[in-house]
Amino acid sequence: MTWPPLRTELQGVEPYGAPQLDVPVCLNVNENPYPPSAAVVADIATSVAQAASTLNRYPDREFTELRSGLAAYLNTSGGTGITADQVWAANGSNEVMLQLLQAFGGPGRTAVSFAPTYSMYPEYARDTNTTWVAGRRHDDFSFDLDHAALLIAEHAPALVLLPSPNNPTGTALEHDVIGKLCELLPESIVVIDEAYGEFRRDGVPSALELLPTYRNLVVTRTMSKAFALAGARLGYLAAAPEICDALRVVRLPYHLSAVTQATAGAALRHADELLASVTELRAERDRTVSWLREQGHTVADSDANFCLFGLFADRHAVWQGLLDRGVLIRETGPAGWLRVSIGTPDEMGAFKDALTETLTAMLTEESL
Amino acid sequence: MTWPPLRTELQGVEPYGAPQLDVPVCLNVNENPYPPSAAVVADIATSVAQAASTLNRYPDREFTELRSGLAAYLNTSGGTGITADQVWAANGSNEVMLQLLQAFGGPGRTAVSFAPTYSMYPEYARDTNTTWVAGRRHDDFSFDLDHAALLIAEHAPALVLLPSPNNPTGTALEHDVIGKLCELLPESIVVIDEAYGEFRRDGVPSALELLPTYRNLVVTRTMSKAFALAGARLGYLAAAPEICDALRVVRLPYHLSAVTQATAGAALRHADELLASVTELRAERDRTVSWLREQGHTVADSDANFCLFGLFADRHAVWQGLLDRGVLIRETGPAGWLRVSIGTPDEMGAFKDALTETLTAMLTEESL
Repeated sequence: MTWPPLRTELQGVEPYGAPQLDVPVCLNVNENPYPPSAAVVADIATSVAQAASTLNRYPDREFTELRSGLAAYLNTSGGTGITADQVWAANGSNEVMLQLLQAFGGPGRTAVSFAPTYSMYPEYARDTNTTWVAGRRHDDFSFDLDHAALLIAEHAPALVLLPSPNNPTGTALEHDVIGKLCELLPESIVVIDEAYGEFRRDGVPSALELLPTYRNLVVTRTMSKAFALAGARLGYLAAAPEICDALRVVRLPYHLSAVTQATAGAALRHADELLASVTELRAERDRTVSWLREQGHTVADSDANFCLFGLFADRHAVWQGLLDRGVLIRETGPAGWLRVSIGTPDEMGAFKDALTETLTAMLTEESL
Repeated sequence: MTWPPLRTELQGVEPYGAPQLDVPVCLNVNENPYPPSAAVVADIATSVAQAASTLNRYPDREFTELRSGLAAYLNTSGGTGITADQVWAANGSNEVMLQLLQAFGGPGRTAVSFAPTYSMYPEYARDTNTTWVAGRRHDDFSFDLDHAALLIAEHAPALVLLPSPNNPTGTALEHDVIGKLCELLPESIVVIDEAYGEFRRDGVPSALELLPTYRNLVVTRTMSKAFALAGARLGYLAAAPEICDALRVVRLPYHLSAVTQATAGAALRHADELLASVTELRAERDRTVSWLREQGHTVADSDANFCLFGLFADRHAVWQGLLDRGVLIRETGPAGWLRVSIGTPDEMGAFKDALTETLTAMLTEESL
């Protein structure tokens, strides 16, 4: 027996996570480049100080005030009439996803997604002993409903997990697709992961609109991206009240600390200010897509705060060339593609310069 | 099929948790009754404000500074030479326990404890699809090593979970018992849950002392009790570095928020002050045990911040009588016993009065 006695399927597995390197320009994990303003920081500090004065007590296990605040926000962000009992939250949307799989997946049950898809999903499945099946998308990353219908008929999944906008491609799902999936699997849970939902382009709808129609639809969100709060770890979902209620059975008691509840509550009170950065980032994203295309690259349409571009015969060399020039992006997605997060105009300037220099240097090397 | 499609074993299960009632004197969930001082609150607020200024970035995934701080503290609290790579932390010791079961338990593996034991353990096992087996203790709650050896031989558990001091009885384990368990199961993980470790009586050792001897020993702690930080949700463990490293495979990336790391770090800087309340609570606990015994009750020896007392033919009536008088305690443990957390002298005065009145009223009713 090997030591320590990890489960067989975990032995030799590297912990998930992008390298945390100390680099001047970090465009690798889709963070929002704009830190909270002094006003937001001050309100967080005041709210946490207030919570801290009773930290000897356990927090509100049902985080009722936060649920109300999130519901109110969702009704300004694509949702209508969403109530507090339709909202659930946890420490990051990864804990939300884990709870969904604990409750509705697990041994003898299957979860499916369609690649390219978020690389953490199979890890959540593994950690909850849920069978994992990955179908595929069309080559242009649009959703292949015919293929999905066949895969679903074959595997009868308990859950479907689909990011929209998709990570790492940036592709949003159409209402037709989501509706069809909910209808194909009326006794299963269809999770639409809108971690990047606020960055969608004008005219692209949110899956929140479909909640009144499909009782098996779950829409997840996070405060990490649009709210620029990756460090606070607050993910949440909207769904039918009975689905939220079911998650109470598997959530660890008091899973959301009083400090987390206070921090998220303060950020919600500054939603307008925090979301202003979303407008800037969407514009910068569109400019980045245009520039990459002008340079002759292939770029997936993006409704997120990142874009996937290529195709490179040796993407690792391009990634390394950027890193050598102080710009860290992500080597992810199908072979030949790279993903860059949208930063400030200065950061994107550095990215463009580094990419141009890298590709020029590679061409020169080749011609020598 | 029922809706929502919860796993069969979760259907109809009530979410875990003591009732969160609005009662003047709450002595039901073993909270520390002393809130953080103004100095501690101020330092938490300052530390969180500092962290908040970069909340748009993900937190340090390996929480290296916090691990160092916790290691330093443990070396003042029963441990010797514990290093940062021997420490792991999560959102409450319940998440620590979940991660241990995800890594070392799971389908086809068994975890055992010995009743009466912490009532959450079977839920962690269920949530990780680990088979759960509960043996028993002696009637006086001391550990029955002969029985344990037989049960272990029969079930070959992957993990043993044992609180010391035990919850809900308050009984600490002797070094002999822990050592013997580690030797009986050299290829398994022996978890000694010292959530209440700081409250042990003089001369009662911590399992931390045994870490250098047994590579399969894991000692868990929490900041909820001794540090009066239940609202901040910070549990941790000390173990061999390779066990901590193994947990990185199952932990959700960035599971500890920057805010949590900042809060816990601030509290650690005030350890002396926060732990002063432990001295007071130990004295109050000993006075409470003495008083209950003087009243003719049976009381389990306690090394924790609560005590288990009885025996009552109708413990629910006693619990209700106390609640009617504004004192909430916990109806838990074997039949006939009740558990009271140790509060301030005023709170314990209210408890004593309410108990006396309740029992007098019950006697009067009986005699009518």
